[in-house]
Amino acid sequence: MRIDILTVLPEMLESPLSCSILKRAQDKGLAEIVVHNLRDYTTDKHRKTDDYPFGGEAGMVMKVQPVDACISHLKSQRHYDEVIFTSPDGETLTQPMANSMSLLENIIILCGHYKGVDYRIREHLITKEISIGDYVLTGGELPAVVIADSIVRLIPGAIGDEQSALSDSFQDNLLAPPVYTRPADYNGWKVPEILLSGHEARIADWRHEQALERTRRLRPDLLD
Amino acid sequence: MRIDILTVLPEMLESPLSCSILKRAQDKGLAEIVVHNLRDYTTDKHRKTDDYPFGGEAGMVMKVQPVDACISHLKSQRHYDEVIFTSPDGETLTQPMANSMSLLENIIILCGHYKGVDYRIREHLITKEISIGDYVLTGGELPAVVIADSIVRLIPGAIGDEQSALSDSFQDNLLAPPVYTRPADYNGWKVPEILLSGHEARIADWRHEQALERTRRLRPDLLD
Repeated sequence: MRIDILTVLPEMLESPLSCSILKRAQDKGLAEIVVHNLRDYTTDKHRKTDDYPFGGEAGMVMKVQPVDACISHLKSQRHYDEVIFTSPDGETLTQPMANSMSLLENIIILCGHYKGVDYRIREHLITKEISIGDYVLTGGELPAVVIADSIVRLIPGAIGDEQSALSDSFQDNLLAPPVYTRPADYNGWKVPEILLSGHEARIADWRHEQALERTRRLRPDLLD
Repeated sequence: MRIDILTVLPEMLESPLSCSILKRAQDKGLAEIVVHNLRDYTTDKHRKTDDYPFGGEAGMVMKVQPVDACISHLKSQRHYDEVIFTSPDGETLTQPMANSMSLLENIIILCGHYKGVDYRIREHLITKEISIGDYVLTGGELPAVVIADSIVRLIPGAIGDEQSALSDSFQDNLLAPPVYTRPADYNGWKVPEILLSGHEARIADWRHEQALERTRRLRPDLLD
């Protein structure tokens, strides 16, 4: 899978893309993540990617031209399944969306910045708008990495232990049960007896009950 | 405001914390963001922060001791308003939550990693669990930066133009209206006439109608 990320702040993406799963998946050849500086696609002499909004308003707006030029360039080289824009207006990211996106071959993610992007980009160039949640961030860079991480970790082989991804929260609409590690007694804080019992079947039952109980209490909406 | 971030992967946070608003807010003295490597708080000779789960299961679990030691150390130096854990089980981050957290003085954010953290940490040390959305990520590092960004940009003076934050999506439960910048005609893609009219009051009306229409169509739940 290939992910092209278009941004005016490529330096912001450096460390998250070169750590942990995103690095490992790239090292293993499972994912290729290419960051494009939109400034490299400007045609004016000041290499400006933003300009004042029409109609007068606070904040700057990302221009159509550099985004159009970069997307056209990429599309001339391969087919893209989706051109994604990270926006508070978009469809809210969920685990099922991440699951289905992990099956795509090539995607573009455009990071908005400043006040927003010229709306014509969204009308003519974007195929899917995704929001990572109902809150405002400074730019689309963090959402782009969040989307990339949620997708890439699902590619078989990306995380060391696939069992681990399958038992994550949300994969079965249940929150994960509590986990514990040594010591069994930390200054009087104790691990539930059942986990020390060695009874595999009873431990599995306990975990399922805990997952159900936690979901009912904390996120009843997941059970609807 | 001071934010202490506790992680086993400090290098992942480097570039997002040294860019854009998070950097500017720190440079201006509006926010102090301190990253702690949990490995520095281990007491065993291998400096291990994780161990196998009790009861047998895939994935590793973050140990109580380094987290407890780091939080105790920080608490001995100042009062903390919240000790936050980023978890899929937590309360889902929203703009009103970001607004109220931006008024706090000192917070700790613990980044989970691997399969999760020993549940005793959550029972005894954490005061608030926050989820940035219903999807699974490799670790709590990206959620911690998302939370920090959503909060810090609201501190007066952090973004250049406060007007701009006030007219963001969600601040009035409406999605933002479309924005446009030059040129008025990009290869036949045109800016709405009204924005070129110079009629301030009519432009304001148009924007409000667009915001309402977009919210009704894309996010009717925000109007409930």
